[in-house]
Amino acid sequence: GALTSEAEGVSGVGVDQELISAVPSHNPTFVSRNFTDAEIAYCRSQPSPPSSFAARWAGKEAVFKSLGVKSKGAAAAMKDIEILNDENGAPAVNLHGEAKAQAEQKGISKVLISLTHSETVAVAFAQATKSS
Amino acid sequence: GALTSEAEGVSGVGVDQELISAVPSHNPTFVSRNFTDAEIAYCRSQPSPPSSFAARWAGKEAVFKSLGVKSKGAAAAMKDIEILNDENGAPAVNLHGEAKAQAEQKGISKVLISLTHSETVAVAFAQATKSS
Amino acid sequence: GALTSEAEGVSGVGVDQELISAVPSHNPTFVSRNFTDAEIAYCRSQPSPPSSFAARWAGKEAVFKSLGVKSKGAAAAMKDIEILNDENGAPAVNLHGEAKAQAEQKGISKVLISLTHSETVAVAFAQATKSS
Repeated sequence: GALTSEAEGVSGVGVDQELISAVPSHNPTFVSRNFTDAEIAYCRSQPSPPSSFAARWAGKEAVFKSLGVKSKGAAAAMKDIEILNDENGAPAVNLHGEAKAQAEQKGISKVLISLTHSETVAVAFAQATKSS
Repeated sequence: GALTSEAEGVSGVGVDQELISAVPSHNPTFVSRNFTDAEIAYCRSQPSPPSSFAARWAGKEAVFKSLGVKSKGAAAAMKDIEILNDENGAPAVNLHGEAKAQAEQKGISKVLISLTHSETVAVAFAQATKSS
Repeated sequence: GALTSEAEGVSGVGVDQELISAVPSHNPTFVSRNFTDAEIAYCRSQPSPPSSFAARWAGKEAVFKSLGVKSKGAAAAMKDIEILNDENGAPAVNLHGEAKAQAEQKGISKVLISLTHSETVAVAFAQATKSS
């Protein structure tokens, strides 16, 4: 019963939620392993750095899901999924390294992202799109 | 490392969550400033008006994010983003005023929306699409 | 003020959240009515079957919303919306029966899905796409 024809334009979607208290943003090893210097500078400049780190962590997980590649667990290079704000203050995805290679191999030209957090929970949504 | 080619079809996505207790739907000034008469009538007809107002408020924020325009904070005319149910009972977005003008300028032809709430939290997702 | 031109590629979106404790996955009638044998086998093989059932239940609701058809409440055949993992471990939607017929009638060729859960809440996002 599967619908098998391939959609043009949209390749995959990803949603993720994280308890802000469960993201170890106070751990320098976790932070330096998973966030780029620009991400770290941004998150530390925000009113609540733990919330900002958690929202970006959820964002990286959501982007990873949207790419539709097999998870490597702790070995996945989340630092290769960089989320920075564009000139309008909206988050935008830059892929590097293996994540970029995997996206290109699948024909993914852009990954859209949105982030939100309450006082306790961060939620992210990502959408991988193909140029048709 | 940014992926720069423009996707056709999808322009932007937005996700938002709101604590229902944090949305001041009992405040007539907040309600009349941010909701249209049709939205107010709908929300007041529902089993839990505070939940319905909070879900629509999250929806307006998600639509705003999906448009990818610079935030004006309290000055953003959320009333210009109207969310009413279609003939199937599904929420649909009508843009008015400046929000409509900004969407048209970006070539956005339709914004899709979905809303959900638990007893405490409302979550909304929006997707701005371009006709190709 | 409605934007009325039809978007190509994307047909509808759906988001849903469920309190894990509110999904009666311990009730064999609820489970057998709403989940396929393959879904049940998968959920029971997971570290936390209640979380897996709740995430898939949220997923079915999100897919249903993304199809944009009138809700039939308890009569909706949620078993016709089957969510199984693909070869990469990512969830994928198979439609059967009436859900499949309704999707085909609307020109929907594929429904994308993503699931996430914390210890207490499951969130799902679905996107119905048309082949253009």
